[in-house]
Amino acid sequence: MIVVMKSRCDEKDIQHVLTFLTNHGLTGHPSRGVERTVIGVLGAVGPSGTPGSIGGINPVLGEALESLPSVESVLRVSKPYKLASREFHPEDTLVDVPVPCVSTSRVSIGNGSVVMMAGPCTVESEKQLMTTAQAVRNEGAIILRGGAFKPSTSPYGFRGLGEERLKLLAKARSEFGMAVITEVMTPTDVSMVCEYADILQIGTRNMQNYMLLDEVGRVNKPVLLKRGMSATIEEWLLAAEYILSQGNRNVILCERGIRTFERVTRNTMDISAIPLIKQLSHLPIISDPSQGTGRRDLVTQMSLASIAAGTDALLIEVHPNPDEALKDGAQSLTLEQFQKLMPQVQAVAQAVGRTFITE
Amino acid sequence: MIVVMKSRCDEKDIQHVLTFLTNHGLTGHPSRGVERTVIGVLGAVGPSGTPGSIGGINPVLGEALESLPSVESVLRVSKPYKLASREFHPEDTLVDVPVPCVSTSRVSIGNGSVVMMAGPCTVESEKQLMTTAQAVRNEGAIILRGGAFKPSTSPYGFRGLGEERLKLLAKARSEFGMAVITEVMTPTDVSMVCEYADILQIGTRNMQNYMLLDEVGRVNKPVLLKRGMSATIEEWLLAAEYILSQGNRNVILCERGIRTFERVTRNTMDISAIPLIKQLSHLPIISDPSQGTGRRDLVTQMSLASIAAGTDALLIEVHPNPDEALKDGAQSLTLEQFQKLMPQVQAVAQAVGRTFITE
Amino acid sequence: MIVVMKSRCDEKDIQHVLTFLTNHGLTGHPSRGVERTVIGVLGAVGPSGTPGSIGGINPVLGEALESLPSVESVLRVSKPYKLASREFHPEDTLVDVPVPCVSTSRVSIGNGSVVMMAGPCTVESEKQLMTTAQAVRNEGAIILRGGAFKPSTSPYGFRGLGEERLKLLAKARSEFGMAVITEVMTPTDVSMVCEYADILQIGTRNMQNYMLLDEVGRVNKPVLLKRGMSATIEEWLLAAEYILSQGNRNVILCERGIRTFERVTRNTMDISAIPLIKQLSHLPIISDPSQGTGRRDLVTQMSLASIAAGTDALLIEVHPNPDEALKDGAQSLTLEQFQKLMPQVQAVAQAVGRTFITE
Amino acid sequence: MIVVMKSRCDEKDIQHVLTFLTNHGLTGHPSRGVERTVIGVLGAVGPSGTPGSIGGINPVLGEALESLPSVESVLRVSKPYKLASREFHPEDTLVDVPVPCVSTSRVSIGNGSVVMMAGPCTVESEKQLMTTAQAVRNEGAIILRGGAFKPSTSPYGFRGLGEERLKLLAKARSEFGMAVITEVMTPTDVSMVCEYADILQIGTRNMQNYMLLDEVGRVNKPVLLKRGMSATIEEWLLAAEYILSQGNRNVILCERGIRTFERVTRNTMDISAIPLIKQLSHLPIISDPSQGTGRRDLVTQMSLASIAAGTDALLIEVHPNPDEALKDGAQSLTLEQFQKLMPQVQAVAQAVGRTFITE
Repeated sequence: MIVVMKSRCDEKDIQHVLTFLTNHGLTGHPSRGVERTVIGVLGAVGPSGTPGSIGGINPVLGEALESLPSVESVLRVSKPYKLASREFHPEDTLVDVPVPCVSTSRVSIGNGSVVMMAGPCTVESEKQLMTTAQAVRNEGAIILRGGAFKPSTSPYGFRGLGEERLKLLAKARSEFGMAVITEVMTPTDVSMVCEYADILQIGTRNMQNYMLLDEVGRVNKPVLLKRGMSATIEEWLLAAEYILSQGNRNVILCERGIRTFERVTRNTMDISAIPLIKQLSHLPIISDPSQGTGRRDLVTQMSLASIAAGTDALLIEVHPNPDEALKDGAQSLTLEQFQKLMPQVQAVAQAVGRTFITE
Repeated sequence: MIVVMKSRCDEKDIQHVLTFLTNHGLTGHPSRGVERTVIGVLGAVGPSGTPGSIGGINPVLGEALESLPSVESVLRVSKPYKLASREFHPEDTLVDVPVPCVSTSRVSIGNGSVVMMAGPCTVESEKQLMTTAQAVRNEGAIILRGGAFKPSTSPYGFRGLGEERLKLLAKARSEFGMAVITEVMTPTDVSMVCEYADILQIGTRNMQNYMLLDEVGRVNKPVLLKRGMSATIEEWLLAAEYILSQGNRNVILCERGIRTFERVTRNTMDISAIPLIKQLSHLPIISDPSQGTGRRDLVTQMSLASIAAGTDALLIEVHPNPDEALKDGAQSLTLEQFQKLMPQVQAVAQAVGRTFITE
Repeated sequence: MIVVMKSRCDEKDIQHVLTFLTNHGLTGHPSRGVERTVIGVLGAVGPSGTPGSIGGINPVLGEALESLPSVESVLRVSKPYKLASREFHPEDTLVDVPVPCVSTSRVSIGNGSVVMMAGPCTVESEKQLMTTAQAVRNEGAIILRGGAFKPSTSPYGFRGLGEERLKLLAKARSEFGMAVITEVMTPTDVSMVCEYADILQIGTRNMQNYMLLDEVGRVNKPVLLKRGMSATIEEWLLAAEYILSQGNRNVILCERGIRTFERVTRNTMDISAIPLIKQLSHLPIISDPSQGTGRRDLVTQMSLASIAAGTDALLIEVHPNPDEALKDGAQSLTLEQFQKLMPQVQAVAQAVGRTFITE
Repeated sequence: MIVVMKSRCDEKDIQHVLTFLTNHGLTGHPSRGVERTVIGVLGAVGPSGTPGSIGGINPVLGEALESLPSVESVLRVSKPYKLASREFHPEDTLVDVPVPCVSTSRVSIGNGSVVMMAGPCTVESEKQLMTTAQAVRNEGAIILRGGAFKPSTSPYGFRGLGEERLKLLAKARSEFGMAVITEVMTPTDVSMVCEYADILQIGTRNMQNYMLLDEVGRVNKPVLLKRGMSATIEEWLLAAEYILSQGNRNVILCERGIRTFERVTRNTMDISAIPLIKQLSHLPIISDPSQGTGRRDLVTQMSLASIAAGTDALLIEVHPNPDEALKDGAQSLTLEQFQKLMPQVQAVAQAVGRTFITE
């Protein structure tokens, strides 16, 4: 942590800051420049309790320092997330998921190969789910997505049907050997969703629902954490830190578009988040071009771009009859469109030296 | 709802849309232009079940129509929120709050007068809370704010201490006669927080935590709904609609700054939201310049601007010693600064013909 | 300037940076922490050539340092603008404008009093201009705004009529004794517009048209510099720095709304920019609520809020018949609305202890 | 154009709008719903003067209608750009550029194949330019980029050296047979830059410098139009419309990142703009991952993603010694990095069925 003093502060102000630091168990090292003085801070205590770092995180102290009248700004040298950072954990995290339909009966998300997660936005009926699962499995998808609980911006939109729908997902899993990913929306539902799902999804609106993050941090299922629609990459990794710090180390990040001024697309998909996350963190990162664009006619190109940029998996909405979908039909691929997509993503994966696991 | 057809669609496409509409109980009225055809839709069913409107909301149908290949876009004529709209409820909603310290022992938020809500960001100790409550009450604040549960972007930040802190707030209320507003973060805490608070606050990160909105919609306490940090005004009113549609009509909106590209302030406070909400909705709207700017040195001017723009109340963070605050010290006023603020806001309120209720 | 080294760098990397600094005439002071090393840099050369500052600006060096493989980031301690900063020039700049219709025949913008600038968005005809000028002057406006050249997002929109319209503005000035402010769009027009205008306006789309900034920096007319629609406050002050560094010290800043995700308003007016600019800079700051909101029905409240927040002047679009305006009719006040606005802004000015100069 | 009336308007209000339309040569077709009335407008006159469209553009009329007190909103059915739209010009525009070093001595940008444009951000010296040109040509780049005039956010940054640098670019062209692309910043420089360059570049800060757009619209050189840093896709196509409407049909669009709240990257590159532009317009679209990210360590992945998404060309900054670059060193590839990039982009181009033209 570095404290930048205001240009007109005097020696008394500097001493005041140094005393403040001492009172909090820290040491300040002032560098007196012609124009202004900066004070390097040693001894800040990080999350794991290790003292002695220049940097370290302690947001409270940083804010307190910033509000001293002689202080211009406080520069944080270290990243505020630790367990999620590549510095803390240099090797890639591999998230292991049981997938009966592949020859190894498990896949490791994050190990360099690519997998396809596909299915309907919302589980509407047994027929709709089974038809879609069969079709996407036939083309090589190995993880089935489908919402049992659905957030909706309007209280009058479709909001899901809960456990009954979870049972349909479990049925599809046993029938087609796919792993199941589905959203959990509130802490009290976590244990129930764990009974049916292989991966718990935290939706974009819940990225900072801290009690929900705590709760999924206490189970041992993999968690897919979608980026909040206006979350910075730092905030997103801090949300992952919530889960990791509760003990659950199986976190997968998912880029799903951010909110910008552009109005032609529902969101602006931040493809650069994929290589950035690979640099900053050891966690797998996947890509949701359906939510990321909100437009079916962009899903194929954004899938290809995601693979080229290094995504660990794609999460695609598919519906047998999107015109009649209860939710987000405008961004779901038809079965035919999905069928056309698969060889294209495999070709690009191969071009960048990656295997696409389909069986 | 108006369906705009693509410029090259033919009569068969138009008939397809008309049949689709008929199948959903609606009637389409095509206007065939030289360049393209648009179809006005009658009979959409709104939330209250009243048919026959041109417009009405049914997001599912709108999306389904939009995904038809011959359709360019679907224009929604009506607002998607109903109960929150001024069209539905032309008179101002007055939210009644019991406030022992004023002569009438109650105040009506939204009736044209202005009130001050002030207190610490976080309840840290009995002494800190009582000192602050006494001081802000002395200057004319009549509602005491204070966080017992606190969301924090980092899992290592301060996160509040729950019920013990709620009891301190209740003690301050009985001692100073102020009403108490405090945040509730998860559905299972709602009934407990209701025992201690006069107004339940929904924080910015929970504006779209739908299960929490449903839960506070089922109690009869006033709810202060903060704007999500990247929420449009429409999404904010839709979040209010969640609460209203569960039966709780005592919703107060709170502007607290939105996320923009600007980095000098923590948020950009959208003062224009105040008069806009007054036009679009009947609900009271208040202003939080502490969170709205993140900087103590802007709170006074943004308080004055909020009053001039028509806010129903101010929500201000005050701390007896902001340099030692556990959270958000940088945006808290000192007691002296708060003391200086009060006559200024009262002068501006008077200049725009409004009464400031302080006793 | 502070160089933050990567956490795994070794002594050789540190020496490489120190040598790099020495080669550029700078001295580095490393602080070796447990977790990482930071290097304070002395001797960077600022714009005026004064060496010896810790900080100073030299974007080239900063970027070069940032791209060294062992460097994590470079923190700039000093602000990149100098002449525009309050640190450089602590007293308020007063911009002197000749205004025949006031008793002193001049006004000093920035001296604590408030003035009204009003008129049509675009000069459409002699009658339209004269009617408007007469009406706004009658109510107390002392500076007449009116576009002779108009930027338009579409090439088919109205784009102004040039010198003929400038002559009408000059005529209105001589008739009503008001000063004239009008936009200049390209360097070759600067000298011509100077012949007719008292204040040159640089529009939002030209805030970073550097050759135009250079050109208006070389004349001795006051320049009103509108904030770019997505400009940070730092970029805006750097644009002012362009003008100031050419010798013209009479720069007035104008907040006119920024681009955000919100769609109900054309722009989000950043009222907090007013007190922020007062802190960061010595230049006057005025407020354009017409462009800032794009909606006539918000202009009054945002005018009042601007005054309460400390604006030095208001810039308001007024049209005798907005329904027939060639441009931006939707945000122009009618003469009647303007008439109602004036006593309100004067009352708020008085409430915050400021004089409104009208004669 | 569709006029949506307010819900409480009466027959008189409707007649007022119909009369207004008639007075402007248009016909209104009201549809009276239970909740509100909408009026379809026929006969709006578009840019090419063809009457009779429902839709058509006339921003003035739209704004005038919107400001009528009984009108809630005006929905524009047609796109405001015409010449730039795919509806107007269904076949892809091919922009022909003379390139001596390829076997055909010309290339057609936009014909489905991909080309590489590379070179230094800024022309610094003959040696720097020649070294870079030789190196990038050796790897297969066929168009040389290099700034002679450079915009810089700070007046103290490097701003280019003009014609002397243009001559160096011309020398590199004659030596290596590459076409040259370089930026023009002001209308009076257009004819001079045309003497040296094969493609004129309009920078992001000048996307709405209308007098410059007009000027490059009057020459017959290809123009590369960079997206404004906060420009919507519609505004970008309207800027292209300025050039096209002056007669120059050889416009190439360039995505270079947009401004968002994210701070880890300089800009957020909007990869989805590539397939979107292909749908909405017939113009070629290319990709600038150097500006688009501002970080050298993301350029490779974003180049690959751009190719996968359908870009017609890449524009890459390369510098023999980025640590010593005068400008934007942090985003320039080294010669070695560029050498590694080329086979990767060619592999992805092949995977999506496209040819990479290198000779």
